[in-house]
Amino acid sequence: MELEEIYQLVEEDLAGVRRQLESVTEVDSPHLAELLQHILGGGKGIRPALTLLAGKFYNYNFDLLLPMATGIELLHTATLVHDDAIDKSSVRRGRPTVNEVWGEERAVLLGDYVFARAGEFAADTGNLRVIILFSQTLQTITSGEIVQTNDAFKLEQTRQHYLDRIASKTASLFSLATISGAILSQAPEDSIKILYDYGFNLGVAFQIVDDILDFVGTEEEMGKPIGSDLSQGTLTLPAMLLLEQYPDDNPVKELFRNPGMPEKDKRDRIRRAIELVGHSPIVKQCYELASGYCEKACRDLGKLPAKPSRQALRELADLVISRKK
Amino acid sequence: MELEEIYQLVEEDLAGVRRQLESVTEVDSPHLAELLQHILGGGKGIRPALTLLAGKFYNYNFDLLLPMATGIELLHTATLVHDDAIDKSSVRRGRPTVNEVWGEERAVLLGDYVFARAGEFAADTGNLRVIILFSQTLQTITSGEIVQTNDAFKLEQTRQHYLDRIASKTASLFSLATISGAILSQAPEDSIKILYDYGFNLGVAFQIVDDILDFVGTEEEMGKPIGSDLSQGTLTLPAMLLLEQYPDDNPVKELFRNPGMPEKDKRDRIRRAIELVGHSPIVKQCYELASGYCEKACRDLGKLPAKPSRQALRELADLVISRKK
Repeated sequence: MELEEIYQLVEEDLAGVRRQLESVTEVDSPHLAELLQHILGGGKGIRPALTLLAGKFYNYNFDLLLPMATGIELLHTATLVHDDAIDKSSVRRGRPTVNEVWGEERAVLLGDYVFARAGEFAADTGNLRVIILFSQTLQTITSGEIVQTNDAFKLEQTRQHYLDRIASKTASLFSLATISGAILSQAPEDSIKILYDYGFNLGVAFQIVDDILDFVGTEEEMGKPIGSDLSQGTLTLPAMLLLEQYPDDNPVKELFRNPGMPEKDKRDRIRRAIELVGHSPIVKQCYELASGYCEKACRDLGKLPAKPSRQALRELADLVISRKK
Repeated sequence: MELEEIYQLVEEDLAGVRRQLESVTEVDSPHLAELLQHILGGGKGIRPALTLLAGKFYNYNFDLLLPMATGIELLHTATLVHDDAIDKSSVRRGRPTVNEVWGEERAVLLGDYVFARAGEFAADTGNLRVIILFSQTLQTITSGEIVQTNDAFKLEQTRQHYLDRIASKTASLFSLATISGAILSQAPEDSIKILYDYGFNLGVAFQIVDDILDFVGTEEEMGKPIGSDLSQGTLTLPAMLLLEQYPDDNPVKELFRNPGMPEKDKRDRIRRAIELVGHSPIVKQCYELASGYCEKACRDLGKLPAKPSRQALRELADLVISRKK
């Protein structure tokens, strides 16, 4: 099943979210409009789709779900703009980044603007519980990234370290997407919990797959260079397993022990790490872990009302594993 | 009258805001705590004082004003952290900046975290009107800064350009401080408008004085280097008047036409601009404009209930003009 098919259930309303995102670009300053047009509209839209699907089990209220889904996609976009500025990345979603075209200053300010616009959309729901969760999620994401910055090029990191990091970096926003859909459709508390857990575990699986694809994907599919985690000094699961399973003559170890090595040598180590991972059982091991999180995500879905969106959430979990981009 | 005397009316509650700000540093990650401790608590607290004073005319409700005043001070602090990162400034409030000590990455992420924490405090008021105003104000500030970045080192800027810039950069947050105090104390709409206008015009005056002090202040008093606006290519009112009144052999013109000149030559132009401004009627002219905004700020205060805070707001306006830091 393709993403488009799963989205069918909420197709029309997702189009509404896209229109809402377009409306964000309608601002007085032509320069700001240009910057906003550059960053909006290129995503897969998985987070807003989650909000809409999670809102399908009880009193589906598009007037509330629309601003929330839009706010969540904007929040995600703003974090990407800042991440790219911080990492000095030059390509995202197959396009040059804001920092690449207009410089880091503009990227920082644009991200700030989009955070604020996102917050206004969340506030437009009029629901204080989701408004507060929205602010808290951004705190979780950024405090997690601050810890990650501190861990750059450190070899001594546990599996738990990694899981904590991706929980705050990715799973927090996935779970915000589902919990807010549940809350805004007046789901009872036990269903809210089930949908929160679904989003959280799906987010963990999604990020593990993302980290695998940074080793085995292609730049064309990913819309950004492969091996970027290693070049930033971020130790993801495949790299951790590589360190454990190939303790001698390990390119990750070499790179992390000497992050100041010439760019050419860096690229050589990254290329070797990608090759080693590709020819090892590591990819399969990582997918197994990700699949485990997807199973966990879906475990309690059966307790939700038997609506079509329940099957869609299950299929979305399968797709998170099989996706190539 | 000193700032401390005006604050007397709200002294105890301002201490509450300071305690609340301290509580923000109590986070799990020791590194994040260290970063937060570095940036919090060093300000004059004029914005939270405005919220509290504006809240004194009707139903003063400290339970609502406390999170709002704290959120506003945090929002202000976050914008400073990002501004310093963008401008690569090394000193703020007499201390090294976050970007100076921990690098730009950390400064961007820390600012994001503090924005989010600020948003949560605003949400804690439970008042949707101020929550939405809060998000909108951050949009106003950042979109204004994006325009400013675009105007860097441009000589052709009108007075209106400058006023628009300081309105979005400074007056927007001052007016948020006063309007939120008014709204949260259930002021009637005409009083809300009067307090909004007070905050807005006071903010314009405050920024004009700030821009004057960047020419005639001392680094010791200001807690940051003098002439920093010119070195960033920001055309403030004193520089505009200098361009108008000294069209020939003008150091600002030389600097802005050749921003890539060697650092030594840059410093020479800035020093000459500071000298010229200091020995001209420009400082007086700028103060006159600022005083006009203070008068405008206070014009309708007489229509508010005759509470002690009314006099405090008037004296605060005088102090904004006479301040040296």
